[in-house]
Amino acid sequence: MYAISLGDDGAELRPLEPWRAEEFLTHIDRGREFIGQYIGLPHVVKNLASSRSFLQSYADKAAADAGRIYGIWMDGKLVGGVLFRTMDVEHGTAEAGCWLEPSAVGKGLVTRATRVIIDWAVEERGIHRVEWQASAENQASIAVARRLGMTRDGVLRESYPHRGKRHDMEVWSVLAPEWRAARGR
Amino acid sequence: MYAISLGDDGAELRPLEPWRAEEFLTHIDRGREFIGQYIGLPHVVKNLASSRSFLQSYADKAAADAGRIYGIWMDGKLVGGVLFRTMDVEHGTAEAGCWLEPSAVGKGLVTRATRVIIDWAVEERGIHRVEWQASAENQASIAVARRLGMTRDGVLRESYPHRGKRHDMEVWSVLAPEWRAARGR
Amino acid sequence: MYAISLGDDGAELRPLEPWRAEEFLTHIDRGREFIGQYIGLPHVVKNLASSRSFLQSYADKAAADAGRIYGIWMDGKLVGGVLFRTMDVEHGTAEAGCWLEPSAVGKGLVTRATRVIIDWAVEERGIHRVEWQASAENQASIAVARRLGMTRDGVLRESYPHRGKRHDMEVWSVLAPEWRAARGR
Amino acid sequence: MYAISLGDDGAELRPLEPWRAEEFLTHIDRGREFIGQYIGLPHVVKNLASSRSFLQSYADKAAADAGRIYGIWMDGKLVGGVLFRTMDVEHGTAEAGCWLEPSAVGKGLVTRATRVIIDWAVEERGIHRVEWQASAENQASIAVARRLGMTRDGVLRESYPHRGKRHDMEVWSVLAPEWRAARGR
Amino acid sequence: MYAISLGDDGAELRPLEPWRAEEFLTHIDRGREFIGQYIGLPHVVKNLASSRSFLQSYADKAAADAGRIYGIWMDGKLVGGVLFRTMDVEHGTAEAGCWLEPSAVGKGLVTRATRVIIDWAVEERGIHRVEWQASAENQASIAVARRLGMTRDGVLRESYPHRGKRHDMEVWSVLAPEWRAARGR
Amino acid sequence: MYAISLGDDGAELRPLEPWRAEEFLTHIDRGREFIGQYIGLPHVVKNLASSRSFLQSYADKAAADAGRIYGIWMDGKLVGGVLFRTMDVEHGTAEAGCWLEPSAVGKGLVTRATRVIIDWAVEERGIHRVEWQASAENQASIAVARRLGMTRDGVLRESYPHRGKRHDMEVWSVLAPEWRAARGR
Repeated sequence: MYAISLGDDGAELRPLEPWRAEEFLTHIDRGREFIGQYIGLPHVVKNLASSRSFLQSYADKAAADAGRIYGIWMDGKLVGGVLFRTMDVEHGTAEAGCWLEPSAVGKGLVTRATRVIIDWAVEERGIHRVEWQASAENQASIAVARRLGMTRDGVLRESYPHRGKRHDMEVWSVLAPEWRAARGR
Repeated sequence: MYAISLGDDGAELRPLEPWRAEEFLTHIDRGREFIGQYIGLPHVVKNLASSRSFLQSYADKAAADAGRIYGIWMDGKLVGGVLFRTMDVEHGTAEAGCWLEPSAVGKGLVTRATRVIIDWAVEERGIHRVEWQASAENQASIAVARRLGMTRDGVLRESYPHRGKRHDMEVWSVLAPEWRAARGR
Repeated sequence: MYAISLGDDGAELRPLEPWRAEEFLTHIDRGREFIGQYIGLPHVVKNLASSRSFLQSYADKAAADAGRIYGIWMDGKLVGGVLFRTMDVEHGTAEAGCWLEPSAVGKGLVTRATRVIIDWAVEERGIHRVEWQASAENQASIAVARRLGMTRDGVLRESYPHRGKRHDMEVWSVLAPEWRAARGR
Repeated sequence: MYAISLGDDGAELRPLEPWRAEEFLTHIDRGREFIGQYIGLPHVVKNLASSRSFLQSYADKAAADAGRIYGIWMDGKLVGGVLFRTMDVEHGTAEAGCWLEPSAVGKGLVTRATRVIIDWAVEERGIHRVEWQASAENQASIAVARRLGMTRDGVLRESYPHRGKRHDMEVWSVLAPEWRAARGR
Repeated sequence: MYAISLGDDGAELRPLEPWRAEEFLTHIDRGREFIGQYIGLPHVVKNLASSRSFLQSYADKAAADAGRIYGIWMDGKLVGGVLFRTMDVEHGTAEAGCWLEPSAVGKGLVTRATRVIIDWAVEERGIHRVEWQASAENQASIAVARRLGMTRDGVLRESYPHRGKRHDMEVWSVLAPEWRAARGR
Repeated sequence: MYAISLGDDGAELRPLEPWRAEEFLTHIDRGREFIGQYIGLPHVVKNLASSRSFLQSYADKAAADAGRIYGIWMDGKLVGGVLFRTMDVEHGTAEAGCWLEPSAVGKGLVTRATRVIIDWAVEERGIHRVEWQASAENQASIAVARRLGMTRDGVLRESYPHRGKRHDMEVWSVLAPEWRAARGR
C-alpha cells in the first residue's frame, strides 16, 4: 500500500513485511552468492520458514520501535533493501545497512533508499547518529557510506566471523548536524 | 516517512505508530466528546500512557498481521484515522473502522481513506470479506458503509455496551467481487 | 468429578479437560465426517497432539474466563459437546456453539446442554447477549437456535471458508430478559 | 454451574474460580483470624486484588493440570474449601489441603469434601499417593488426615515459618490401594 | 573461572553451566547405569539437546534464586555434582542432592562438596533447614545424609516412581543451629 | 561461596547476584557521584528495587550466556566490579567494562579483575575479541584498556548521551592471539 518513489526509473521503497516471505526468498535466491559475500543475510534466509521468521524478527523490531526493514522494488520486482538493524530512539542512535541482488547494482539504489530512511530517522525520529558497518573488504558498501557523506570512525578488528574468516568491520557514521548541512537544510 | 495522498486538499494517510502517542492524544482530546458518542476509543485513550499502549496494541497486531491502524493528516494535523480492528488473512476476513475529530467532518476523508485500505486488503492481501460495524444510531458511520457500496448483513441486538446503554450494532460488508465490480476492475 | 445430569436417559455434561485428549480424539474419529460437514473442529483435532492442544486452548480460555468447553456423555461415552467459543464478561456477551457425533443425534442433547450453560452465563455470570453462529446450510444447528428461542440477527455473507467453499453464517442471539421470560423466571 | 452435594445438610462442592474473588474475600474476612492460625492463606488473600490473583494462580494450575481448588458452600454461603496444592499426574502424586471458617467447623465438611476430590484423583486421574501436610500443632487438620485413613509418614522439622515461628510439619499420606480398600472397592 | 578446592586430591567444585553440556553428557554417559539406579538424572540427560536443556533449567533456577547446580571435577574431569534442587530463601528451606560416576565413588567427594554448599546456604543465604531425599534403597546417599549429621524426618511412602517401581523416599534434614553446632561455630 | 583472590591485599572477585541488591546499592551510594561521571550505572541503580532489577538483568544474561557481572570486594566490602555487558559466544565477541567507588581507586583492582575475566572468556569460552568502550574523556578507563594491552580501534563520535552531553566513545580491543602472546602463553 505504502510506496515511496526513489526516482524516475521505477524504483520504489516499500515496507517489507512477513507476508512477503515468498517474494523475499525468491529475491534472495537470485542473489544468494553475491549478497552473501560479506553479509550473513543469505545464511539466515534459507527457505520459506526462515524467510518468514527473518521478516517476522523485523516486524517485531518495528513494533518495539527498535529497527525497521524496507524493500527496494524495481519495476515491481523486489531487488534489495535497506534497514535499521538497530534503532535506539532514547539514545538517538541507529545502525543502517543494505543489500542488493546483482541485477540491481550500479544504479545508486541503495544510496537513494538510505537517504530516505536517514532523513526519516534524523528529521522525524530525532536520531542524532546513524552508523554504518561494513567489512573492510566490502568496497561497494564502503562507497555507499562515502557517498552518504559519512565519516570513518574506526575499524573493529576481526569482529565479524563470516564464511570461515574473521572480518575487520569498518564503522562509519553521520551525525544529524552533518546530515542537515549536507542536505542543505 | 510513508504517506499516501488522499486528494488535492492536503489530506494524507500515514502509519500511526506508538511514537506518535502524544500527537494522537492531543487529537483525541480535541475530539473526545464527539468521537466518544458511539465508539469507545476516547474511553481507552485517556492520557499519554494509555495513548501509547493503545497504539502499541496496534503495532503488535501489525507485527502479527492481525490488524492495522492508519492516521489521517490534514495539512500536517492528525484529524482522524481508519483501521482494521481485526484481519484474518487465512480466513480472508477483516473488520474495518474509523474515527474523526469534528473539524474534519464533512470532507469525505473517512470514505477516501477506507477505500485505500480496502483496496490494499482485497488486492494485495487476498481479503474476501471486509466488514463494518456501527451502532444503529451512528448515522455518519452507516453513511460511510453505504458510500463504500456495502450491504447490511444484519443487526447484532444490544451487543455493545457504551455510556450506560447497550447499542444495537449494524453489520455491513462488502465482498471482493463486489468491491472490484464497483471499482470497475 | 463434576457432572450435571441432562435428563433421565443417562446424558451428562462434564468439564472437557486436556487430560481427556485421547477420549476426545476417539469421539471425533467416530464422527469425523459428520461433524466436519459445517464446522472446522475435525480439521483441527487430527491426532493425539492436536486433540490435546485444542483442549488445552480451552483450558487456557477457562483460566482467562474467556471461553469454556463441556462434553456430553451418554452412558459413559463422550458423544458431543457445547462450548462458549468466546465469553466477554465485561461486555456481557458470549458466543455459544456445539457438536455431536451421529449416534447421538435426535435426542435433543445439544438443546438440553446449551440450556444449562446459557443459564449459567446469564444467571451466574451476568451475560446479557448469547450469540449462536451457524452456516446457513446447517439446518440442525439453526433448529437448535430456534428451539432455544433465539432470534436471527442477520447473515454474515461468505464469512466462513470451509471445505473449499465460503459459507454464509447466520447469527442468532438471545438476550438475558428474553431468556428469563422464556424460562418463566 | 457444577455442584456436588456433600450430604443432606445443604453442603456443596463447586469450582472456586477467579470471578468469585469478592465472595472469596468476604469469606476469608469472616474467618481471617481462625483460618490463619496454622496456614498462610489469610496472609495471601488480603484484598480484592490479592483474592483475585490467588484464585487466578489456581485457575492457571488447573489449566496446567498441576493443582485445583474447590469451594464448600453451606446453604449458598462459601464457608471453606479443599484443594490440591500440587498434582503431578506423571508421577502419580498430589498434595491435598483444606481451610474452613469457624461457623462451618464440626460438621465434617472437610472430610466429606476431601473424600470427593481424593476419589477423583485416585479413580479418574490415576494418582497413587495423596499427601496431606499439617503443622504438628494443628490438631483439627491432623484429625482429618486420620479420619481419611491416612498414615503419618514423618515430621518435616521446622520447615514452615508462620507468624514468627517455624512449625514442624507432619506429613500424612494415603496410597491408592489403601484408599480403595478403605472405601470397600 | 570460579573453582573451590575440595581437598588435597585435586577435587574441585565449579559452576555447572549450560555451555558445559557436552562435557556433562560425556560424564553422564560414563556413569549412566550406575547413576540411574536410584535417580532420574540419566533418564533426563539423554543427548546433547537434553543435556543442554537440563543445565539450562538450573541456569534459570539460579537466575531466579530458586536452585543451583555445581559440578565436581577430579583432576580436570567432571565426575559428579551436588545441587539444590529447590531453594526458597523466603521460607528458609532448601533441598540438596548429589550424583557421582562410579570412578569417583569412595573418596568422600559428595560429602565434602555438600558441606561447602550447605555452608553457603546456611551462613550466607540464611537457609534454616536443608533437606535431603533418597530412596530407602539408596544406601550410599543415606550414608551421606548421616555423615552430614542429618536427622531422618520420615519416609514418604511410594512417592517416587523410578524404573517401573515406586520407591519409598527417606527425608533427612539438618537445621541451621545443628549445622553450626556440628561445625563448631 | 565462590571467590577468586585478586592478590595479597585482600581483594576478591565474586559473583554479584540479585540477593546482594542491598549491599550493591550501599556501595553505589558511596560512589554515586564519582562513578556517574562517565557511565550510567548510578542513574540506573537508584533504590533497592532498581538495584535488584539491575542485578536481575545480569542474572538473566548469565542464564542466557549473554553477559556476566562480578563484584570486587576489598576486605569484605564491595567496592566495584567488572562485567561483560555483552557476550556472544557464537560470534566470539564480548564487551567488557568496569566501575569503582573512589576509595578503591589507584590499586589496580579493575586491571587485575579484568585480566581474570578476559582469561576466562578467551581460554575457557573461546572468545576471540574482547572490546572495551569508554568516553574519550574517561582517562582512567582508557588507561585500563592500555594496561590490558588493548588497541584503539576508533572513536564512535557522539554516540553516548550522558548527563546532557553526547560523548565520543573510544573503542579498544584485544584479540585472543594478542592476549595469549602478552600473557606469555
